[in-house]
This record gives sequence, C-alpha cells and structure tokens, in this order.
Amino acid sequence: MKYAIGIDIGGTNIRAALVDEELRVVRKEKRSSMDGLRENLIEMTDSLYGPEVVGVGVAVAGLVDREERVVKKSPNLEQVEGLDFGGLPGRAFSLPVFIENDANAHALGESKAGAGRDFRDFILLTLGTGIGGGVVYRGRLLDVAAELGHITVETGGVSCPCGNSGCLESYASGRAVVNAVVSEIEAGRETMLSECCDGNLYRITPLHIFEYALEGDNLAREVLKNAGRYLGVGIASLVNIFSPRAVLIGGGLANAWDILVEEAKREARRRAFDELIEKVEIIPAELSDDAGVVGAASLVFDGLMKQ
Amino acid sequence: MKYAIGIDIGGTNIRAALVDEELRVVRKEKRSSMDGLRENLIEMTDSLYGPEVVGVGVAVAGLVDREERVVKKSPNLEQVEGLDFGGLPGRAFSLPVFIENDANAHALGESKAGAGRDFRDFILLTLGTGIGGGVVYRGRLLDVAAELGHITVETGGVSCPCGNSGCLESYASGRAVVNAVVSEIEAGRETMLSECCDGNLYRITPLHIFEYALEGDNLAREVLKNAGRYLGVGIASLVNIFSPRAVLIGGGLANAWDILVEEAKREARRRAFDELIEKVEIIPAELSDDAGVVGAASLVFDGLMKQ
Repeated sequence: MKYAIGIDIGGTNIRAALVDEELRVVRKEKRSSMDGLRENLIEMTDSLYGPEVVGVGVAVAGLVDREERVVKKSPNLEQVEGLDFGGLPGRAFSLPVFIENDANAHALGESKAGAGRDFRDFILLTLGTGIGGGVVYRGRLLDVAAELGHITVETGGVSCPCGNSGCLESYASGRAVVNAVVSEIEAGRETMLSECCDGNLYRITPLHIFEYALEGDNLAREVLKNAGRYLGVGIASLVNIFSPRAVLIGGGLANAWDILVEEAKREARRRAFDELIEKVEIIPAELSDDAGVVGAASLVFDGLMKQ
Repeated sequence: MKYAIGIDIGGTNIRAALVDEELRVVRKEKRSSMDGLRENLIEMTDSLYGPEVVGVGVAVAGLVDREERVVKKSPNLEQVEGLDFGGLPGRAFSLPVFIENDANAHALGESKAGAGRDFRDFILLTLGTGIGGGVVYRGRLLDVAAELGHITVETGGVSCPCGNSGCLESYASGRAVVNAVVSEIEAGRETMLSECCDGNLYRITPLHIFEYALEGDNLAREVLKNAGRYLGVGIASLVNIFSPRAVLIGGGLANAWDILVEEAKREARRRAFDELIEKVEIIPAELSDDAGVVGAASLVFDGLMKQ
C-alpha cells in the first residue's frame, strides 16, 4: 500500500495526516498555524514520514500558484504568503509536493470520499473563520479561484480583510457571527452571552453562540439566523450561476445547522430560480476536519498517476 | 460548403441568419419576437432554407432544456416558455435542431469568431433589456445555467422579474437605467431627458440616455455611472469566482462604454482580488448583433460533428 501525507493549513490549525491509497486516514496530527508555522510543518511531516510515502499534498487557505507551489495571497493567514512549499527541508518535502487552495482540496476530498461522492456537479462551502468554496463540475474540480466567500452580497456593506466591502464572508462566517455578537453586547444589548467565557467577550466562539442559541438566547438565535439568511443569498447566486445538484456545507459553523443552514435553505429557495433550486440538495459535508488532508493526499495520488 | 440557420430570440427581436461552416454570416433577417413568434420563426427559416442547410441552432433568452429543446423559464420572454422547437413545422425544423441559452450562444460565438478567440477562459456579459452571461472555461462553454444577471448585489434590493430581489440585472441592465431615469423624472428631477421622445417618458431607451449623457445631462450621466458601479460589483464577484483572463461586454448598453463600463472597471479593480483582476482584460464583445446567430449556428456544426 502506498501513502501520502496530506496537510491542511487553516486559520488557526495545521492538520497533517498519513493517508492511504484508498483515502483512509491512518494517522493524524494537529498543531497551531499561528506560531512557528514552518517548523511545525517540518516536524509534523517528519513524524508521519515512512518509506511507503510517495508525496506530500498541501491544502492552504488563499490564492495558490500550483506550478510555483507558493501562496500568492491569503487574507486570513498572511504567514503562508510566499512560503516555498517545494523547497522546505525534511525527507517528506524532498518527495513530489502538490499544493491546492484549502477549500478546493476540501471539495476534492468530499468528491472522492465524502458527501459529494454521488454528485457530478456540486459546490462546497466551508464555513470556518472565513468562507471557503470549491466547485466540482462533471466530476472534476473546476480549476478556478472559487473564492466563493468573496462575492458581494451588500454593495455598501462592511469592509472585508480582502479589500472589498459587503463580501458574503463578512456576513455568514464564524468571524462574522462572533463580530455581530460582540458589537451588540458592546452596544448594550442584553444577552446570556455576556456571561460567557467569564465575561471576556473576545473569547466567544461560534460554538458558544450556537450553544446559547439552543438555550433560547435571543441575540444568539438572531445572529445565527441573520448569517443563515446571507448564506442563503450567496447560495442562491451560486445556484443561478452553476446549476449544481448539491451544495455541501462544512466547517465549524455548519454545526449550527438547524438554525443557520435551515434559514439559508429557506432564503435560497425564495431567491434562486425555482427550476434550478428544486434540483439542489443542501446537505452537510461528511469528512469534517479530514476533508482537507484527504483532498490534499488525493492530489498526490492523482498527480503521480498523471506523471 | 455547408450552412446552418442560426436563430437568436431576444426580448424584442428575432434574428435569423444563414451561416457558413467558417461561421461567416451570409444572409440575415430580423423580425419582432413580441407578436407572432411562432409564425415568424417558421417564415424566417423557410426563407433562409436551402439544400446545403444541415441544421438549425436556436439561441433563446432563458433557462433551456437542451435535450427536450424547450425553454423552461424565461422571465423576459414568456412567449417562448414551453415552445417545442424540435417539433415546429417547416423544412428547416425537420433537420437536426439544437437549442442553447442566448447568452451562452453569444459566448460561444465570441469564443469561436469574436473577441474571445484569444482567451481560453473568459466571461461574456450581455447588457440588453436584462443581463445575460456565458462562461468559457479552458476553451469550452461551461454547461451551467450561467444566469449571471441574477446574482444578488443588494440583499434588500429592488424586486426582479425572476422572483429574487437585488439582482445585478436590476441595477445594470438596459431596463434598469431606463427605470432609474423615469423614476427620477417622475419624482420631479430636472433633466433634459424630460423633453426626449416628445415628452413621452415611456419611450426613453438606453440609447437616448447615453446621448443625453454625452451632451452633459447630469441625471443621464449619474444613472449610467451608477449602473456601471453595480456592473463592477458583479464583475468583481465573477472574477473572484472564475479567475478569467477576460470579461467581454456586449449588448446595447455597452455602447455607453466610456461612462458606464469605465466606471465598472474602476469599481471591479477596487473590489476583486488584486492578483486576479490585474490579469483580466475588460473588453467589448465583437460580434454585436451577430453573436447569437453565429453561436447558434456553431452549435449545429459542432453537434453534427459529434454525432
């Protein structure tokens, strides 16, 4: 059996895994992507390396240059910009290295071994710190930027780290819901969330918001519903563009499914062309935190097969 | 030499043409698509028919079913909904008939014989009564709905005939600029345009608005610039999604290039990822009114070659 090392570098964590040819995760590790990114990458791959490893696949947030194996822009993860993945030291990095945008890699993982298996045409939206996207068309990943979090849903809307204003990501991502809650509390709004995290607002996470929403907190519910509404606006635009058969929703914020995604479904149905939206299943992604490492590993097996 | 009959059915006119294998337009006709659509189609194809004609290609506004050769939904052209193009009488319609969304056909025409010739990845936006779109990816038309006029740019925006609110088309199409001018005049705004068309506001066209803008009319300039700004918002989203090398702009409203499209370029540059937009040429479509008939005819030659 051959193996690949799949690496997924997100806003806060690096995940690395040893993945076999059947795309099963054999062993995995997780470290911070905030401090010592380069050293962590080298140590993690060294630890997962073995003689049957045939290559390394890297999934990374941002705009990647596949030939040069560098990240050209990453609004949420500046420390990877310019990092030369093909030139890192360590035994693993002397093997063939493939790089892909993380959301594209997630879509590839879901397509090959997750909820996208049964669909030739689907969109994956990953609701993390930001919003990532990937488009699978006729069974293959569409090789485009697919920065689906950076479509404008409010022309005069709030500023986004990408330089635009009114991006979908600024309304329906993990960061967006946390920002909305913090602003409301700072403006004096009453909510049980102000007691969360020993009163330290800056430690509130999307998961806290979801938990308080389930306990009936009005602000928490309102913020998640509003994010869901905008997610629905984005989904409707994407359905009108791509006429997919499924929209897969992954990432941490997808845990708030019953409140946030159900609202998104309603909004998307109201907005998209009926003939298109009625054919679309809006369903959870399956691979959860493994989507990126599995997709990245599959780049290695596919890439080596082509050579 | 073989010939195909290309037909392009838009919001107000049907264009039909005899097109040779080199995609040159040999002869063409134009009639209304508002009254007697079915009869006009039959008479026009009869008149263009000859023994060297090998098939008919139809480009039509709306959501088409290529297999069934019917239009499933057409917000701007309800009279074509349900019309069975494969079953129309007449010698031409007994030949193989191919059907495609008009904006997709325009993109195909531009790709094969127009401004898209030099680009493997481009988007065509046709600014007519509404806004049509087509996406060419790696030299081939992407076989998706590509309803690029129906992406949401203002979540709480104005209602669109498609059922959504805040669609790009409601801000940057021919109909949108006319509506904006008429509303302003009805609200008492002073403008030279109120003397246009013998004072009959409902006869104002986008071309009038452009002419008055060139003469320095403030309202006309303001409305075209505002439409351009929204067009730029839409282009930025599409660039962030598709990372194309060109955006081709066609349709009647593209005549207002120096005011409207130049504003769109500025806005798109402000909003899209720098690394993507700097690679994009925003240029006029070339085939003008022939894009649809040429694209439709090319469907016939390509379709027959595949059979």
